[in-house]
Amino acid sequence: MPKVSDDHLAARRSQILDGARSCFAEFGYEGATVRRLEEATGLSRGAIFHHFRDKDALFLALAQEDAGRMAEVAATQGLIQVMRDMLARPEDFDWLGTRLEIARRLRNDPEFRANWEERSTELTAATVARLERRKAAGALRDDVPTEVILGYLDMVLDGLIARIASGHANDNLESVLDLVEASVRRKQ
Amino acid sequence: MPKVSDDHLAARRSQILDGARSCFAEFGYEGATVRRLEEATGLSRGAIFHHFRDKDALFLALAQEDAGRMAEVAATQGLIQVMRDMLARPEDFDWLGTRLEIARRLRNDPEFRANWEERSTELTAATVARLERRKAAGALRDDVPTEVILGYLDMVLDGLIARIASGHANDNLESVLDLVEASVRRKQ
Repeated sequence: MPKVSDDHLAARRSQILDGARSCFAEFGYEGATVRRLEEATGLSRGAIFHHFRDKDALFLALAQEDAGRMAEVAATQGLIQVMRDMLARPEDFDWLGTRLEIARRLRNDPEFRANWEERSTELTAATVARLERRKAAGALRDDVPTEVILGYLDMVLDGLIARIASGHANDNLESVLDLVEASVRRKQ
Repeated sequence: MPKVSDDHLAARRSQILDGARSCFAEFGYEGATVRRLEEATGLSRGAIFHHFRDKDALFLALAQEDAGRMAEVAATQGLIQVMRDMLARPEDFDWLGTRLEIARRLRNDPEFRANWEERSTELTAATVARLERRKAAGALRDDVPTEVILGYLDMVLDGLIARIASGHANDNLESVLDLVEASVRRKQ
């Protein structure tokens, strides 16, 4: 019965990812020890690391899940809508603070960095495709190269993540995102 | 000879801060152990903690130094110039990655958060004063409240810090800052 087995594997994998996500959110990357991951997932280390090679692999799998979900929204509604969604439910994105913790590692560990960047490829591609479509439709400003607009939106996204992670998300930020949106729109 | 003694104290304090800054930049907040702080400053733990109560106090003193320097530039040339300076010498701002590591702590530790926010008061005040002056001079857009522009610039600054800390600062970001600058300028 390979079908049942596949379902079981997928359910187990998803149980591990959900537990790991809240564990990272609560304790951070360094603080998410193997013991805490066991508690958060309700599984033994043997079971966890049967599915994921090590803590890095688990972390990158979470980043991949996020990137996939964000790419879906970015493809149809744009990266600013991704940010609006984060702002509407900051508690769902608590674990993103962990992304900030790994900044030093991204700078100093080329292999980790390469793995990490692979995860963001899908989101970048979805965002660029939508920006090009909006530009062709005359909705996006065309006096600035698309890669500058992409760099701008990426930087704003990083800033938003920092705000949410440090508990500084507030109502003001919705108006800030309006300003961001207006600043990439084609002027009439 | 109180004067000599004061000079000596100030020199010692500055030796500790410089060493601590590079220690935090290299090892991060958690990784900057007392032993590593001793090595980086060339002083014993006794000497270090004679001047600063604990690692938090040392960290907040560095944040205070930065905020003071940034406030000087922000007061006369604006917060975007502060960002341009960071982009011109990212290696001077490596330690800022540590700011990202503390995000979770800012969220969960009210006392630390209060101390941290006190440090940014000066920079915020300098930025707001300049924004109001620019608005009065007709150089800043006036269709958006000043606090939204402040929130926008703060978020962009956080994003820039995340980029620099993760080694993603590149030439593209100068054009991104041009876009940011244009988006708060008054349209002719």
